[in-house]
Amino acid sequence: KRRGIPEVIFAETKEIDEIKKIVKKTLEKSNSVIISRIKKKDYTKILAFAKKLKITIKTGKNSSTLLLFKKPITFHGGRVGILTAGTSDIGVAEESRLMCEAMNCKCITGYDVGVAGIQRIFPILKKMIKEDVDCIIVAAGMEGALATLVSSMVDIPVIGIPTSVGYGYGEKGIAALASMLQSCSLGLSVVNIDNGIAAGGIAANIANRSIRKKN
Amino acid sequence: KRRGIPEVIFAETKEIDEIKKIVKKTLEKSNSVIISRIKKKDYTKILAFAKKLKITIKTGKNSSTLLLFKKPITFHGGRVGILTAGTSDIGVAEESRLMCEAMNCKCITGYDVGVAGIQRIFPILKKMIKEDVDCIIVAAGMEGALATLVSSMVDIPVIGIPTSVGYGYGEKGIAALASMLQSCSLGLSVVNIDNGIAAGGIAANIANRSIRKKN
Amino acid sequence: KRRGIPEVIFAETKEIDEIKKIVKKTLEKSNSVIISRIKKKDYTKILAFAKKLKITIKTGKNSSTLLLFKKPITFHGGRVGILTAGTSDIGVAEESRLMCEAMNCKCITGYDVGVAGIQRIFPILKKMIKEDVDCIIVAAGMEGALATLVSSMVDIPVIGIPTSVGYGYGEKGIAALASMLQSCSLGLSVVNIDNGIAAGGIAANIANRSIRKKN
Amino acid sequence: KRRGIPEVIFAETKEIDEIKKIVKKTLEKSNSVIISRIKKKDYTKILAFAKKLKITIKTGKNSSTLLLFKKPITFHGGRVGILTAGTSDIGVAEESRLMCEAMNCKCITGYDVGVAGIQRIFPILKKMIKEDVDCIIVAAGMEGALATLVSSMVDIPVIGIPTSVGYGYGEKGIAALASMLQSCSLGLSVVNIDNGIAAGGIAANIANRSIRKKN
Amino acid sequence: KRRGIPEVIFAETKEIDEIKKIVKKTLEKSNSVIISRIKKKDYTKILAFAKKLKITIKTGKNSSTLLLFKKPITFHGGRVGILTAGTSDIGVAEESRLMCEAMNCKCITGYDVGVAGIQRIFPILKKMIKEDVDCIIVAAGMEGALATLVSSMVDIPVIGIPTSVGYGYGEKGIAALASMLQSCSLGLSVVNIDNGIAAGGIAANIANRSIRKKN
Amino acid sequence: KRRGIPEVIFAETKEIDEIKKIVKKTLEKSNSVIISRIKKKDYTKILAFAKKLKITIKTGKNSSTLLLFKKPITFHGGRVGILTAGTSDIGVAEESRLMCEAMNCKCITGYDVGVAGIQRIFPILKKMIKEDVDCIIVAAGMEGALATLVSSMVDIPVIGIPTSVGYGYGEKGIAALASMLQSCSLGLSVVNIDNGIAAGGIAANIANRSIRKKN
Amino acid sequence: KRRGIPEVIFAETKEIDEIKKIVKKTLEKSNSVIISRIKKKDYTKILAFAKKLKITIKTGKNSSTLLLFKKPITFHGGRVGILTAGTSDIGVAEESRLMCEAMNCKCITGYDVGVAGIQRIFPILKKMIKEDVDCIIVAAGMEGALATLVSSMVDIPVIGIPTSVGYGYGEKGIAALASMLQSCSLGLSVVNIDNGIAAGGIAANIANRSIRKKN
Amino acid sequence: KRRGIPEVIFAETKEIDEIKKIVKKTLEKSNSVIISRIKKKDYTKILAFAKKLKITIKTGKNSSTLLLFKKPITFHGGRVGILTAGTSDIGVAEESRLMCEAMNCKCITGYDVGVAGIQRIFPILKKMIKEDVDCIIVAAGMEGALATLVSSMVDIPVIGIPTSVGYGYGEKGIAALASMLQSCSLGLSVVNIDNGIAAGGIAANIANRSIRKKN
Ligand SMILES: Nc1ncnc2c1ncn2[C@@H]1O[C@H](COP(=O)(O)O)[C@@H](O)[C@H]1O
Ligand SMILES: Nc1ncnc2c1ncn2[C@@H]1O[C@H](COP(=O)(O)O)[C@@H](O)[C@H]1O
Ligand SMILES: Nc1ncnc2c1ncn2[C@@H]1O[C@H](COP(=O)(O)O)[C@@H](O)[C@H]1O
Ligand SMILES: Nc1ncnc2c1ncn2[C@@H]1O[C@H](COP(=O)(O)O)[C@@H](O)[C@H]1O
Ligand SMILES: [Mg+2]
Ligand SMILES: [Mg+2]
Ligand SMILES: [Mg+2]
Ligand SMILES: [Mg+2]
Ligand SMILES: [Mg+2]
Ligand SMILES: [Mg+2]
Ligand SMILES: [Mg+2]
Ligand SMILES: [Mg+2]
Repeated sequence: KRRGIPEVIFAETKEIDEIKKIVKKTLEKSNSVIISRIKKKDYTKILAFAKKLKITIKTGKNSSTLLLFKKPITFHGGRVGILTAGTSDIGVAEESRLMCEAMNCKCITGYDVGVAGIQRIFPILKKMIKEDVDCIIVAAGMEGALATLVSSMVDIPVIGIPTSVGYGYGEKGIAALASMLQSCSLGLSVVNIDNGIAAGGIAANIANRSIRKKN
Repeated sequence: KRRGIPEVIFAETKEIDEIKKIVKKTLEKSNSVIISRIKKKDYTKILAFAKKLKITIKTGKNSSTLLLFKKPITFHGGRVGILTAGTSDIGVAEESRLMCEAMNCKCITGYDVGVAGIQRIFPILKKMIKEDVDCIIVAAGMEGALATLVSSMVDIPVIGIPTSVGYGYGEKGIAALASMLQSCSLGLSVVNIDNGIAAGGIAANIANRSIRKKN
Repeated sequence: KRRGIPEVIFAETKEIDEIKKIVKKTLEKSNSVIISRIKKKDYTKILAFAKKLKITIKTGKNSSTLLLFKKPITFHGGRVGILTAGTSDIGVAEESRLMCEAMNCKCITGYDVGVAGIQRIFPILKKMIKEDVDCIIVAAGMEGALATLVSSMVDIPVIGIPTSVGYGYGEKGIAALASMLQSCSLGLSVVNIDNGIAAGGIAANIANRSIRKKN
Repeated sequence: KRRGIPEVIFAETKEIDEIKKIVKKTLEKSNSVIISRIKKKDYTKILAFAKKLKITIKTGKNSSTLLLFKKPITFHGGRVGILTAGTSDIGVAEESRLMCEAMNCKCITGYDVGVAGIQRIFPILKKMIKEDVDCIIVAAGMEGALATLVSSMVDIPVIGIPTSVGYGYGEKGIAALASMLQSCSLGLSVVNIDNGIAAGGIAANIANRSIRKKN
Repeated sequence: KRRGIPEVIFAETKEIDEIKKIVKKTLEKSNSVIISRIKKKDYTKILAFAKKLKITIKTGKNSSTLLLFKKPITFHGGRVGILTAGTSDIGVAEESRLMCEAMNCKCITGYDVGVAGIQRIFPILKKMIKEDVDCIIVAAGMEGALATLVSSMVDIPVIGIPTSVGYGYGEKGIAALASMLQSCSLGLSVVNIDNGIAAGGIAANIANRSIRKKN
Repeated sequence: KRRGIPEVIFAETKEIDEIKKIVKKTLEKSNSVIISRIKKKDYTKILAFAKKLKITIKTGKNSSTLLLFKKPITFHGGRVGILTAGTSDIGVAEESRLMCEAMNCKCITGYDVGVAGIQRIFPILKKMIKEDVDCIIVAAGMEGALATLVSSMVDIPVIGIPTSVGYGYGEKGIAALASMLQSCSLGLSVVNIDNGIAAGGIAANIANRSIRKKN
Repeated sequence: KRRGIPEVIFAETKEIDEIKKIVKKTLEKSNSVIISRIKKKDYTKILAFAKKLKITIKTGKNSSTLLLFKKPITFHGGRVGILTAGTSDIGVAEESRLMCEAMNCKCITGYDVGVAGIQRIFPILKKMIKEDVDCIIVAAGMEGALATLVSSMVDIPVIGIPTSVGYGYGEKGIAALASMLQSCSLGLSVVNIDNGIAAGGIAANIANRSIRKKN
Repeated sequence: KRRGIPEVIFAETKEIDEIKKIVKKTLEKSNSVIISRIKKKDYTKILAFAKKLKITIKTGKNSSTLLLFKKPITFHGGRVGILTAGTSDIGVAEESRLMCEAMNCKCITGYDVGVAGIQRIFPILKKMIKEDVDCIIVAAGMEGALATLVSSMVDIPVIGIPTSVGYGYGEKGIAALASMLQSCSLGLSVVNIDNGIAAGGIAANIANRSIRKKN
């Protein structure tokens, strides 16, 4: 079995009862489970369900993803930086954070640093370098330029998440995805649009390997 | 009739004899004519044809476009700045330059300033501001980020030209076009992929109006 | 800092409380703020919120965009013409008008002049030329032919806004965008589908530079 | 069997020997045959082959299509008008003409009337109305606006042929096709990109029915 | 002015009050008006509004389109055949019927003749030929094969309407549109997906010209 | 190991020397090998290579695929019918035939039966039913209607191969693929555009299972 | 008439009353009818309607499809295996099961065997081989890899159904469809996205022919 | 300046003289330079040019990329595993290898392990785990399933490169890209189609950070 990757339930296409059943079954054999892309109407139901079962819950700002766990999660893994270009990308970034934390990574976050002016990016990047993060996740919609920019300024591997923010031609994250893939800034790879889970998974993966090497 | 917009012959879908015939007919009633997207095999034939007719020719670096004129063209119009991200975008930028010059604009160019490092953009932008250009054209391929960047740093209207440089998803200028259209940097509008003629036309248009106001 | 470009809040992906918070913070340091693409259910809430704070509001016909300001806005900038092909394009055109007015431009508008018959376009174009507008915005959906038509009749730079009006193949503004980009009428550049903000931004930019030159 | 529709050989995907064989077999039972989209290298071979067999040939300007027939073709059918926007659309328009003539229609053509200025369209349209054509074919590339324009000015049914002229977004006739389909001008239907055969077929069909009614 | 083409109001993007205003204004100078793509919630409101104004209304089965007129409409024009492949295409076909009737054409309809078995098409086609229709409209979704089939069996010009019936790859009428455009059956041209108005307009146009010739 | 499926070498992206090496290695352990999508310039080289090695070769009409084998191949498997709409689809159909024969199936073919007239399909279908084929492959380009038609007339499973014949919208087999996928005729499944190998593989698979059951 | 293929009503675009009418008419001449893609709001209405008419109903888990029949259906036909990758694909798989059962096939199902780990696939595949199924249906969303995998492990023909599960680039089944079509595993053909009916139809078709041969 | 990332010249859109000039200039200040996507006709010219200048060259099998360096490159960095599904993906994989080696990484390669049978993947994966690689690059075309498969079997971060191998729907790497992005196997991120440079860049980046931590 692969180490440290939590079970993730894709809730969007499941009924609430199916979700509950899978949660229960999963927590019998693991300490934690992530439920992602929860329908609005099911979100509070899952909170209540967890409370009744005395399962602890971690939520994400503006996020439809939840992390459920039994014993407290410790951050003995690597460190991951998480950035968003705008405030609209925070929900996706938080999904990544929950995933990373479930995989025992400490996260340093900097949200809404990419749209209003280039200068806001410098202090947070400096902090991430100082904290020695092993991977930086950048969530950005519209033209998605922040991922390229960050990757061109640091030696740290960058995982770009195009987000489905924007309208008109290139909407739904398509322009951001295309830009990130076309980027000529080396040190950048991408996951699918809005897929905070996948970004969190590989980032934690990178950070945790790095820390194991160090130890 | 509209003032100062030269006749442009779209050579790509025309036989050399048709082109020659249209050139002749056009130069009977105007001082200049532009021939754009000339097939490789026709380029030198047109140079020879012009020479024989004692028509002066202006060429563009790496460009398939030619400007032909009878009396010398003076630069009594406005000023236009032209930038490219890489060396591969120069041909398209030069097409814009020929178009602007045919419309009596003086051009300040800065090529290959966008890929290798952000720092190369500052001196040339400073120069353009000092020369008081009224419009800046930015030709960029791949993810096309330079247009957004420039537009976010100046108050001058920017015309973005996505170029067909790049491969894979978003190739043929599609990623650059999508990025520029999705850009949240105000002060930017775009023309079609590789269309240096259209960019030159509107830029000269803006610059010349501005100068007329001034006078 | 760039002169005269107001802060624009993209409301579509934000909760009402986030919007209010950003409005407050912005108006502390600027005189005006634009809120665009407001969700239907939030529109009246924002009107009420502004009223309570004694902030003046300018609305646009059929538009989901609002302009909020503290001190009255004067029209000491340039002049911009705004046209729409049909009545369905008015909301987007009004977004451009609010943006231009926030940037101190006087707007001359002519709505619904492009569909029923070509003859309706002439008097309004004549008026715009007489008022000496420095830029014309043309909002058009379906096949978007009005932008090409206007641009081929005047020397004034034209900014085309494809609108998401229409259905079937080329729906959601795609046909209009493609037409405007393919247009062989020089003097036309485009912004993204329904993006009245971007069109207003560059048009006011052009008009205001022109007026500064004159003065 | 359907009346008056000639056999059409689609040459693009056939070897020269297959083409010759089909021509021979077809001319055994019909008076005429059309060969369309002939590869450059096969064009003169087919001319020679026809000459040797004493079959008369009708060619089209800039066209890869040929009409072969044994007995002279008379124009006792209806009348069809054929227009092109630019010179680059002539090859496709000529394919339509050959098809119409094979179906015994007299054609009135007006080429290169749509790009340089709207005024060139009026005399030729007036002539077509006077000659009482029953259908007008309009071949146009880039944004394909001429089809909409013509259809909005006459009561005669218009068949639009988008042509594959243009480059960048909407290239290969896609923008022209989308525009014509989105057109809000009633009286217009379309055939596929570059398909002069299909346009000729339905136009002649319409014109010939009309003339039969009259007689 | 063009003869016999009624004003058509595109209701989808208009508010009910705008629609009412345009209806009133139009009926002041014409006898009839068509309102197409009426939102569900507005449909009965318009019926009531017409009733109150004593305007006669013609509805179409499953159709969101209405024909309003003052004096009775006579069928002194040509004849048009209208076919649908399935029952799901009837709404669009009825839109065409209303348009044709507004243009004084008599319509012969045959609905749901194309899906369950090829044999159902023959009696209705025979009837249409006997009634001497001058044009046949074929509305078909999914793979849209009925238009090709009909056009290959008759000499009458066929106007294909791809309908947005179907799901998966090629959904929303895209497969049907592509098929009809690729069809190698001569005598077929198409309008945009679900555009019963456009099909009705050109079909009536063809039929009415034919009848005028006859008279 | 799976029974009876020959090794297939995809030659398009391989150099001639790589191909030869793989052929040799494969024929050491199997009796036959198929080489598909051979570049024009390599075709005769492979023929020569096989001759020198005394390997028997089976070619297909108009096909870029070759079947190489050591001991004669017997047809003790099931029976497969193979149809094409036009003559341009024969190369792809022949690729399927070679694949089926390599899998010991007897093939009954009927080429060019779908375009010129529906009546040509009946005798060949009757023959296939009489020969009791267990699967019918239908290769068709343009709108690909033949696959739907055949499948609606027989109880035998049909495998559709969209071919890349056609031009304009839906070109390169896209319209044919979309039509076949949208087809409401039950008993039809498809393989990718031009993929005669895949169609042959599953058809032989079906036919051979059927024959094994019988025995 | 074709044997054993039940009438299938496509409910998505039909009103409840139309559906009831067609059900009644169909059951007058056949023993069974399938209603597919029933709108949520109509599902229980149809259950009630069937109950009142004393028609037996078979439902599918998570499926919007119903099988209605008068006399009990016997499984004297062939055998079909049905697999899904995730729990989200079950509804589509159940649609296939209902179709197969209506065609007298016995189904062996294995759901949710493809996502969490490759090992879950082996026991169910072994069982299907032992039960000697003649065709395996594989429903899979996201990247749809299960269809390729299964087809590479068995000699049994596989019908892939891409399902519309997933989000971002390649969403709505597009990635799964593309993967299955590109699959280099021989023995696989596909139906359209979410089209459990089509998959069931051809699978039962294959299985029933095989059983007839055996008998 | 960023550590250890070599200059990469994108040769596809450059003339040979430009390339030579950039090579010279780059090698004045760095030890190595990579030239990627060299046109066939320029490849040997660059080899000769390097030889004349006494620059050492490293080539890649089937690759259009070259690594030029002055002093020998040592492998004191991390370790990277590189896999390809077929032989057609080797050229792209070799581009990654050259990039990794230029960044001082030792590469363990396993080519052609993914198509013919799943069993070939195990020994090479075992070796990579034993050699303790810090990142695995997987180059795969067609449906690109190998990247998902590898990523689901190891804890090592995987970078997928979709390659432009394949034809028909999803060709040019589009299916492989979509599959990899849709993959529900955590631990996978992707670069653009055929972009061995980008994959090599981030993989070496990850591996080198890891090794630095260890030291
Ligand atoms: N939001 C998500 N995005 C991508 N993959 C996910 C997501 N949530 C869950 N998954 C994956 O999808 C699989 C669950 O599929 P299912 O059985 O339908 O819940 C697990 O292997 C997860 O790793
Ligand atoms: N490179 C170009 N890009 C866009 N439009 C062009 C270009 N060259 C010429 N044109 C326009 O295309 C028209 C010429 O069409 P044609 O008659 O085919 O030469 C003129 O109106 C030009 O303004
Ligand atoms: N240029 C063309 N465009 C569209 N259809 C054509 C064309 N040329 C021939 N066809 C049709 O294609 C069919 C011939 O196909 P084939 O047997 O391959 O020659 C005939 O039915 C023609 O009507
Ligand atoms: N094959 C390649 N794929 C993607 N980016 C590349 C490739 N080759 C070079 N680049 C990048 O493109 C830039 C070079 O652009 P240019 O000035 O046109 O040579 C450099 O920053 C490289 O990192
Ligand atoms: Mg970096
Ligand atoms: Mg700016
Ligand atoms: Mg103009
Ligand atoms: Mg008209
Ligand atoms: Mg016909
Ligand atoms: Mg069948
Ligand atoms: Mg198999
Ligand atoms: Mg992994």
